[in-house]
Amino acid sequence: MRTSIATVSLSGSLTEKLTAAARAGFDGVEIFENDLLASPLAPEEIRSLCADLGLTVDLYQPMRDIEGVPADEFARNLRRAEHKFRVMQRLGADTVLVCSSVSPLAEDDDALAAYQLRRLAERAADFGIRVAYEALAWGRHVNTYDHAWRIVEAADHPALGTCLDSFHILARGSDPKGIEDIPGDKVFFLQLADAPLLSMDVLRWSRHHRVFPGQGDLDVAGLLRHVLRTGYRGPLSLEVFNDVFRQAEAGPAAVDALRSLLVLQEAVGEGELPRPVVPTGVAFTELVTPDVEPAAALLTALGFTRTGRHRGKPVDLWEQGAARVLLNTGPAARRDGTVLAAVGLESPDPAGAARRAEALLAPVLPRRRTTGDVLLDAVAAPNGTELFFCATDRPGLPSWTADFEPTGDQAGPTGISGIDHLALTQPWHQFDEAALFHRGVLGLDAHGSVDVADPYGLRRSRAFATADGAVRVALGVGPGPGDEHTHAQHIALATDDVVTAARRFRAAGGQLLAVPGNYYDDLAARHSFAPGELETYQELGILYDRDAHGTFRHCYTHTLGRVFFELAQRDDGYRGYGAQNAPVRLAAQHGSGSVAAR
Amino acid sequence: MRTSIATVSLSGSLTEKLTAAARAGFDGVEIFENDLLASPLAPEEIRSLCADLGLTVDLYQPMRDIEGVPADEFARNLRRAEHKFRVMQRLGADTVLVCSSVSPLAEDDDALAAYQLRRLAERAADFGIRVAYEALAWGRHVNTYDHAWRIVEAADHPALGTCLDSFHILARGSDPKGIEDIPGDKVFFLQLADAPLLSMDVLRWSRHHRVFPGQGDLDVAGLLRHVLRTGYRGPLSLEVFNDVFRQAEAGPAAVDALRSLLVLQEAVGEGELPRPVVPTGVAFTELVTPDVEPAAALLTALGFTRTGRHRGKPVDLWEQGAARVLLNTGPAARRDGTVLAAVGLESPDPAGAARRAEALLAPVLPRRRTTGDVLLDAVAAPNGTELFFCATDRPGLPSWTADFEPTGDQAGPTGISGIDHLALTQPWHQFDEAALFHRGVLGLDAHGSVDVADPYGLRRSRAFATADGAVRVALGVGPGPGDEHTHAQHIALATDDVVTAARRFRAAGGQLLAVPGNYYDDLAARHSFAPGELETYQELGILYDRDAHGTFRHCYTHTLGRVFFELAQRDDGYRGYGAQNAPVRLAAQHGSGSVAAR
Repeated sequence: MRTSIATVSLSGSLTEKLTAAARAGFDGVEIFENDLLASPLAPEEIRSLCADLGLTVDLYQPMRDIEGVPADEFARNLRRAEHKFRVMQRLGADTVLVCSSVSPLAEDDDALAAYQLRRLAERAADFGIRVAYEALAWGRHVNTYDHAWRIVEAADHPALGTCLDSFHILARGSDPKGIEDIPGDKVFFLQLADAPLLSMDVLRWSRHHRVFPGQGDLDVAGLLRHVLRTGYRGPLSLEVFNDVFRQAEAGPAAVDALRSLLVLQEAVGEGELPRPVVPTGVAFTELVTPDVEPAAALLTALGFTRTGRHRGKPVDLWEQGAARVLLNTGPAARRDGTVLAAVGLESPDPAGAARRAEALLAPVLPRRRTTGDVLLDAVAAPNGTELFFCATDRPGLPSWTADFEPTGDQAGPTGISGIDHLALTQPWHQFDEAALFHRGVLGLDAHGSVDVADPYGLRRSRAFATADGAVRVALGVGPGPGDEHTHAQHIALATDDVVTAARRFRAAGGQLLAVPGNYYDDLAARHSFAPGELETYQELGILYDRDAHGTFRHCYTHTLGRVFFELAQRDDGYRGYGAQNAPVRLAAQHGSGSVAAR
Repeated sequence: MRTSIATVSLSGSLTEKLTAAARAGFDGVEIFENDLLASPLAPEEIRSLCADLGLTVDLYQPMRDIEGVPADEFARNLRRAEHKFRVMQRLGADTVLVCSSVSPLAEDDDALAAYQLRRLAERAADFGIRVAYEALAWGRHVNTYDHAWRIVEAADHPALGTCLDSFHILARGSDPKGIEDIPGDKVFFLQLADAPLLSMDVLRWSRHHRVFPGQGDLDVAGLLRHVLRTGYRGPLSLEVFNDVFRQAEAGPAAVDALRSLLVLQEAVGEGELPRPVVPTGVAFTELVTPDVEPAAALLTALGFTRTGRHRGKPVDLWEQGAARVLLNTGPAARRDGTVLAAVGLESPDPAGAARRAEALLAPVLPRRRTTGDVLLDAVAAPNGTELFFCATDRPGLPSWTADFEPTGDQAGPTGISGIDHLALTQPWHQFDEAALFHRGVLGLDAHGSVDVADPYGLRRSRAFATADGAVRVALGVGPGPGDEHTHAQHIALATDDVVTAARRFRAAGGQLLAVPGNYYDDLAARHSFAPGELETYQELGILYDRDAHGTFRHCYTHTLGRVFFELAQRDDGYRGYGAQNAPVRLAAQHGSGSVAAR
């Protein structure tokens, strides 16, 4: 289907917005009036620019409070409308959006509204323009889609139809099933936006918190199915007002927006995306470090053994259990110290996973052809982390491990069985984008978002995982722009005996994050423990959590550059990530000064 | 009255919070449990630190969902409570806050709640602790203050009283008059917070948007009057949850917080603040510039004449009408180019105005004793701008103008009559603080806050003015931290003929900000103009606005460093600041590239 986006959904000048929409691959745009008014380009120039960029101008929305008003007011409105129809002719836009009136002058009189809309449509038709009438969720008298449609039906003019908007319909809790009663050729336009479920007044919710489909909690796909059953074949157009998007770079935001429409079309059986390939585990994580000694010392203390050396690059493979860490000291070593630069995901079909990622607009990284002629499929995640789709040591498929010359050392039994989860910090502007990426591209299930109090601001965290928990990723975002540069990411290692693992780590020279005694005093007040148990936890800095299913015991290493490790024991089907302990952990890390890059 | 603040209202580690509260001058603190749990200090050490800082520990709040629950659950709660009472003894806190239960287990049974609270109070009394029971606005069964009080009354134990919280009471719309029915000795504690009026669910509103009294829209002073009539003489304690405050520096936030309590006490006839001295005009603005030529050229083109030279410093006085600009090229000239560094306010009592500012914790600047022995009273505004309280050329009072040696040149009639308003950019974290400063310290009236769309994010703006409009200040804040360094401030000059003033400026070599033709096309659709009028506006970049009272016509000069000028014609009692034209102006400034510092 054709895709479109409202210029208000992107940041920058009108030229920047149009360029970003075209580069992402949109077919058309809705031009928001304020963007036109603030542009130094004349309407004809905007029309040419759109044509050059391969964009159609699908909608213009310059009118408010048109209908249901006293006759003298309506006369003024018609005069204004004619003026705007001329602008639209210069702009090359043939559909005008008219939202239901919010004017205090508006009367609760459907017949009057229908009469005036018909008059408006007659005038529009003279200019070759169609009028799409939409119910705003906070319209004064008309605020449901079926009410707007009844008025359109009564007005009965070929140049008058309705515009449906997923936000306005779903935010009101209207049943979208009734959409199917509208003839498809009277649905002149379809605007799509999602939103997180927040209890606040609908105007504020709409103006500040709309997100792209799939990023929120509304059933936009369900609504789209009803619309398609009417026979509607116009564009799917995104109209999203969001305080964060207003500050985000237009280019990545436009890509994110288009991705949301591709996933949405797939959800309703339209479009032709390669099928999702759900990862089955974490093949490896890659740390890039300018200074190999501290990183090697940390891995050694954690029980990792250096089992391989890359045949062509300064990269070592460290292993224990199913956990593998690549330590890269090559030219990619960045100035900002040790970072988690790449993640390998075990995939049943690496090439298929990469094809899907590419179809969903993830930047495909140049295929690394290794010394052993192994091709690796990789894409960039929104935060810049490289994601490799791997088939580790599987017959018939190339394995990334073939690139590594064994050192001869074997990883012994250490009590670490693999990766429990990865905690990745996201750029502030791209938290919602990252969510869509992890669901749509990687096929992970999304869990709820939680707020975590850091001593210097609120952080948000949201987990994504496969149904079996083989891959778990916790995305975090700090309180403001730029914060991602000061907060560390971490790798949680799974163990079935965190006490022993922590003791072994410390005995091997590792430093565990110290946790305040007050925390343990509170644990004692909240739960029962065996004699000596809490003392052991306190000695090792082990934190404790419990949910309806089981328990979670976890502790943290010191931080190296922007990375630290967690030792995590997950028992009896505990489903969380210890989020309720995060404030204590964050405060301890601030206190130790170890979070800062070094 | 004694003042207190909850540690959750400030950012940082517990030590940072306590230090900030003490330095600002608070008498005590409420310790939030999470701050204690995350602190490496033992309760005894926190107690010592508070004592050293001169702070009492007025409240601890470690308990949730205590009352109205099944017997086995209550037994566990009592056990937990005893544990916490021991912590409180170590901490030196004698009052514990118990908020009404939100547990799904809680029963709607006042007798049960009263019985269990009495049991809790009996146990607390053994530890010398008092229990203050508070109705949360979202409590499951108990969510109004009078309901909480009925339960306390029924429980009838000397160690049990109630805690009143302005947010919870006013947010529910409860009538605070009934507070007077509670005996003062049963009001164990008073928590104060304000909030902007937002329609959203009360939990979210409370957790993210509370502000200090006087920064929001609730009648906190009215509530306090009722509380004082009960005979309550405990502390006034601030408990404010706010996403922005969590990121702000603790020191300035604590000062801001205490200032809010000083103004609040004044409002109810408590405390002894010097009386407000409302300014009667703008005496001068001072630009600091590293490069005198472009600034002098801009002032000359605007019609200013250099009328004086400071006797001791490289500062020139430029005048026209009642508008005066000081041009400072001394060592204070900052690296970031031309800035608006100081404002002189005409004051009926400069020394009194400075005394009030000092009593309200504004940093008093070292008194400048000039060559002519003129003492200037000055304080620093929250954004660092220096504010001088002036008595310009008034008999019997020292005048700052005495410092200036006349050049002999006289300012001729130029059509500029004075300053219409000043537009000052505030640091992101201090917008609410700046609001309190302009109301409380300067005695200006606050107008509503408006959102303004900038191409790269939403900006907020709020106007403050004297009743007669002699002093008008528009405070603006950008979409995120750091933004204040990239946005310019401006000085709006008043004229009764903006067209002539703009023409004269341009003829004298000044550059006016160009405004897109689309803007004028839209004006034509919205209003009627005389023939040629709009063409004149477009030629000169004059913007137009109209409110219920009158009209506003205004245009902008190019930007010099971080400062530009506006020419403003305000007719027939127009009350605004042209905010609806701000998006067009901001887009034009981004487009011209002239906003960046040079």
